[in-house]
Amino acid sequence: MEDKINIAVIGVGYWGPNLVRNFSKLDNVKVYSVCDVNEDRLNLVKKDYPGVKTTTDFSEVLNDPEVSAVALALPVRLHYDFAKRALLAKKHVLIEKPMTSSAIEAGDLVKIAREQSRILMVDHTFAYYGPVKRIKEIIDSGELGKIYYFDSQRINLGLIRTDVNVIWDLASHDISIMDLLIKDNPVSVSATGTSHIGSKKEELAHLMVNYDNGLVAHVHVSWLSPVKLRQIFIGGEEKMVYFDDIHPSEKIKIYDKNVKMDPSKETPFDPIYRSGEIRIPTYNMKEALLAECEHFVNCIINNEKPLTDGENGERVVKILEACDRSLKEKGKEISLT
Amino acid sequence: MEDKINIAVIGVGYWGPNLVRNFSKLDNVKVYSVCDVNEDRLNLVKKDYPGVKTTTDFSEVLNDPEVSAVALALPVRLHYDFAKRALLAKKHVLIEKPMTSSAIEAGDLVKIAREQSRILMVDHTFAYYGPVKRIKEIIDSGELGKIYYFDSQRINLGLIRTDVNVIWDLASHDISIMDLLIKDNPVSVSATGTSHIGSKKEELAHLMVNYDNGLVAHVHVSWLSPVKLRQIFIGGEEKMVYFDDIHPSEKIKIYDKNVKMDPSKETPFDPIYRSGEIRIPTYNMKEALLAECEHFVNCIINNEKPLTDGENGERVVKILEACDRSLKEKGKEISLT
Amino acid sequence: MEDKINIAVIGVGYWGPNLVRNFSKLDNVKVYSVCDVNEDRLNLVKKDYPGVKTTTDFSEVLNDPEVSAVALALPVRLHYDFAKRALLAKKHVLIEKPMTSSAIEAGDLVKIAREQSRILMVDHTFAYYGPVKRIKEIIDSGELGKIYYFDSQRINLGLIRTDVNVIWDLASHDISIMDLLIKDNPVSVSATGTSHIGSKKEELAHLMVNYDNGLVAHVHVSWLSPVKLRQIFIGGEEKMVYFDDIHPSEKIKIYDKNVKMDPSKETPFDPIYRSGEIRIPTYNMKEALLAECEHFVNCIINNEKPLTDGENGERVVKILEACDRSLKEKGKEISLT
Amino acid sequence: MEDKINIAVIGVGYWGPNLVRNFSKLDNVKVYSVCDVNEDRLNLVKKDYPGVKTTTDFSEVLNDPEVSAVALALPVRLHYDFAKRALLAKKHVLIEKPMTSSAIEAGDLVKIAREQSRILMVDHTFAYYGPVKRIKEIIDSGELGKIYYFDSQRINLGLIRTDVNVIWDLASHDISIMDLLIKDNPVSVSATGTSHIGSKKEELAHLMVNYDNGLVAHVHVSWLSPVKLRQIFIGGEEKMVYFDDIHPSEKIKIYDKNVKMDPSKETPFDPIYRSGEIRIPTYNMKEALLAECEHFVNCIINNEKPLTDGENGERVVKILEACDRSLKEKGKEISLT
Repeated sequence: MEDKINIAVIGVGYWGPNLVRNFSKLDNVKVYSVCDVNEDRLNLVKKDYPGVKTTTDFSEVLNDPEVSAVALALPVRLHYDFAKRALLAKKHVLIEKPMTSSAIEAGDLVKIAREQSRILMVDHTFAYYGPVKRIKEIIDSGELGKIYYFDSQRINLGLIRTDVNVIWDLASHDISIMDLLIKDNPVSVSATGTSHIGSKKEELAHLMVNYDNGLVAHVHVSWLSPVKLRQIFIGGEEKMVYFDDIHPSEKIKIYDKNVKMDPSKETPFDPIYRSGEIRIPTYNMKEALLAECEHFVNCIINNEKPLTDGENGERVVKILEACDRSLKEKGKEISLT
Repeated sequence: MEDKINIAVIGVGYWGPNLVRNFSKLDNVKVYSVCDVNEDRLNLVKKDYPGVKTTTDFSEVLNDPEVSAVALALPVRLHYDFAKRALLAKKHVLIEKPMTSSAIEAGDLVKIAREQSRILMVDHTFAYYGPVKRIKEIIDSGELGKIYYFDSQRINLGLIRTDVNVIWDLASHDISIMDLLIKDNPVSVSATGTSHIGSKKEELAHLMVNYDNGLVAHVHVSWLSPVKLRQIFIGGEEKMVYFDDIHPSEKIKIYDKNVKMDPSKETPFDPIYRSGEIRIPTYNMKEALLAECEHFVNCIINNEKPLTDGENGERVVKILEACDRSLKEKGKEISLT
Repeated sequence: MEDKINIAVIGVGYWGPNLVRNFSKLDNVKVYSVCDVNEDRLNLVKKDYPGVKTTTDFSEVLNDPEVSAVALALPVRLHYDFAKRALLAKKHVLIEKPMTSSAIEAGDLVKIAREQSRILMVDHTFAYYGPVKRIKEIIDSGELGKIYYFDSQRINLGLIRTDVNVIWDLASHDISIMDLLIKDNPVSVSATGTSHIGSKKEELAHLMVNYDNGLVAHVHVSWLSPVKLRQIFIGGEEKMVYFDDIHPSEKIKIYDKNVKMDPSKETPFDPIYRSGEIRIPTYNMKEALLAECEHFVNCIINNEKPLTDGENGERVVKILEACDRSLKEKGKEISLT
Repeated sequence: MEDKINIAVIGVGYWGPNLVRNFSKLDNVKVYSVCDVNEDRLNLVKKDYPGVKTTTDFSEVLNDPEVSAVALALPVRLHYDFAKRALLAKKHVLIEKPMTSSAIEAGDLVKIAREQSRILMVDHTFAYYGPVKRIKEIIDSGELGKIYYFDSQRINLGLIRTDVNVIWDLASHDISIMDLLIKDNPVSVSATGTSHIGSKKEELAHLMVNYDNGLVAHVHVSWLSPVKLRQIFIGGEEKMVYFDDIHPSEKIKIYDKNVKMDPSKETPFDPIYRSGEIRIPTYNMKEALLAECEHFVNCIINNEKPLTDGENGERVVKILEACDRSLKEKGKEISLT
């Protein structure tokens, strides 16, 4: 009888230990083993979780029939190969974001997961974050009306990565949030960015995503800002939302503000400005990563499609790839279709 | 004996009365007359300033030998014609920003002013604003090191104009500030924007200006934001500056923060982050428009080149024109050379 | 036929010119004359308002039958004498706050005004201020429940006065706001304060007002603070209000927060915390002083009791007097009954 | 050979586990055992720290010669008895704040610790907190000049305690910070407070401490505030400091602001206001409790007087006791000498 789902966490450098910690909190899960090439990292986990097996050999994990699922916290370039091997070994897979280095790889994993009837989920944590879920409810209720724009700033000082540029590192969060919140279809992308410090990767960038219904999304990401900002404006025909993730308690503001044409007299243009009340709604404060781990496990148990499934991850990677192409052509608009 | 310089203010709708009010405060200036096609507007001025002549006929102003200078507060499309006539009538000219509808017109005015030996100045008010002048001193002192980026947000709800788009209306401020602060040369521009409300002009836009030394400037302007932001980040190799014009008293912050490569070991990339003290410097609180009016008058008296002379206005219009071209080509990079 | 009410403004130093400016905006009022011992001040007014009579002789104003009302903007110690003479000369009277130097004087003016059937109004401007009126509506609606506390901070650097201490200067605003908002009766006062700079008057102080229903009000006033704060917390059984008068646009927050005993189990004490939505309501943005001037004139025309009548002014002075007594006895509780 | 100091943590309810966690991080310490009457609490600790002994019997801890020191995280009323027994059993003692229920008890513990030559330290965590230590350096440098006032707000919603009132719970932090920062001697105290919810203990309070050199300290504490504030203003003759402990990164501001009498002309009073630069200094970000645990251990090893020794704890309790007396007499000033 399978009482608990056994999970193996692959890669316990920066992000992996967070997965170990959160999976350990769940009743119906056992963190069965962890795998890393670095034995020091394995020993650190062992110290806090004496009951967890450790190994430097990924094959050992794949061959162990006790392991039902693997969570991959590895450099992006390794995602495809490790995920593919895991799926073929009949393991369910959770992959750290971004899902893969290319959309082709992502599409291939989606196909394999379908063939193997395994759950494939991407670690887009914000989809499981109380404030973001609350904003989704607000948008889905229709109270904002038609969405005009999405504008995000995700900037701070460091940590500069050298395996991917700042768009793959930071804007991937925004692109997955956009995928969740915006029902329109993205049709083109343009991106500009620069590298000043010598990392060879863009350290600050601006990207624009155009949607089929007129909506425009702009994302500003930077590792070179003196202050940390995590804020998103969403402007609608009827109301507007501001999300300030740095604020300790008042993260969302709904502005009952808009500007409209006076329909009674279209010529000359005579806009009407409305400025009503502002509301700061409540939201669930549960840790997003814990909610995500729970969701992964429930999808396995109930054989359900995850909120951030492989297709979602593939759509995000597709936009990231288009950004890289636009960056090379100095901001040229790249079609997504 | 000419005790006082007689000035005529042309156009007393929204901005003109501010010019009347500020020129009236100066000892060596007399607001001699105001001119507008709308007699109601003239009467409003007359009520507050009984000694000022009023007229609906611009020729009358030009033909009056008592008038030494005119200040034009008119729709942009009229700037060129009115300024040209005034210069040819040997009047000194102050033009509201943006200077003209095209760079060719601007260049023509510069040439005429030179031929007529008259002062030609553009009303780029921020150049005379205490906090901006303070930031210029900081940059000129070299303490920021090489400038990496300039990033501005100038957004709020309304007032939507129909004669020009949001870039000509709002970003013209940033472009003139950039002209003042940045010593490098702009080489290309790209801009994207959209119109949602039906004004036919872009109501929100993002523009990028690339400089010859690697510096990138990004400006976000919008008439559709729920909140009013007026903020600029300037990131340098050594320090960074934040300018928040909404703050009532602490408008400038100098961050002693940066990230650099460790020169001793270039491989692998190993950045060093420094996070020192923040300083909030003092600055002159004098009203910018008053300082500007004083400067105009002093340039006339001393026959000196204004800080925001015609060439400065022309450079700004050149970038604005390039933005319009890029907007039409969906963000394509437009060369400025 | 009395087309317009003729008003004389007595004292045109710091505050008087504001009265001149605002009364001048009203259609049914004429600023008929201004009176001051300082001729330079009179000339400054004359320059901006050539049609206004000027005089250094208060008797002249009192004897002029054209003058219906006087507005007194004088040092506090002169309020009683000037107001009394004006009332006896059958003029309506508006007195700058605080109304008088003592409650006895205030009571005497109330009596004289009644006998002379003249309007007597005190310049407690906050009673006519949009945000304060909005907070009054919120409290009157009952949504806060029983009020537990009122807590105000009114602190900044300067301007240090030498005629009155910081309580008479700044806390008089809070005491008049409390008089407007709180329906309970104040029963005792205690105040502590100190003088550090050498003005001989308290430059910072804390005062507590106890009400008959358990409500406590605390007011912190200071001329020695590095930052300017103008904020009031009002805590109720059901909801709480925060008023931040420094914020340019979001001055009021209504917190749907409280803590209550669980009524089902009184022992042991087991409080229930509720933390719901926050609302930022709209409010009228009209200048308070203009609304106040209008109100004074309407009360004259319609022979109605002003919102901030003499009795209101007397209640405020009574508390200020009690504060002075408590200050002398190092914070001893002084009964108001 | 004693490699590591063995510590026992007594009481593992709310605060005790934090002590276990931090002592466990130190190399020269072993959390040897934990003691609590509640076996569930003991098991929770056991789960995370399998190597730690657990017991419900305090005597067992006292009789174990392996235990060098005890850390007491118990209700205040038990502090005296447990600490006394531990000292008499020759254990070093760390007591959670406030030290005891009365100054007499505190004095007695100080005496016993001296007789037994044991370290007695009170858990006044803020003394080990980077920002507070930085403010101490600023004050000690003399750059603020003579200190005029100390003004603290420590307010939020909950957690309401029933064993002590809000002054003993929250203001004890401020009083220990004042003990650390202010070199003058406190001479009297007055306090007012109210209970609205039915906890029988004051839930909001204001207290004033007067010092022998004219300095006044005011502390506002509340469990009934809609927002969480943790801020202290310290005003000096030369400069002023603001400490905002809620701000994630800019906790300290030094204002180069003051107001002084013009020494050249004392009559009339003519103050000079100075408003210079503001500085936001850096500070150590290390967790305060870890620094405190380290300090306790170092004091044991080197037989040194702790920064927050028993005398410090006794001085704080003396002021807390005086507050209770003043509360009962409705704010009457209570002498400390």
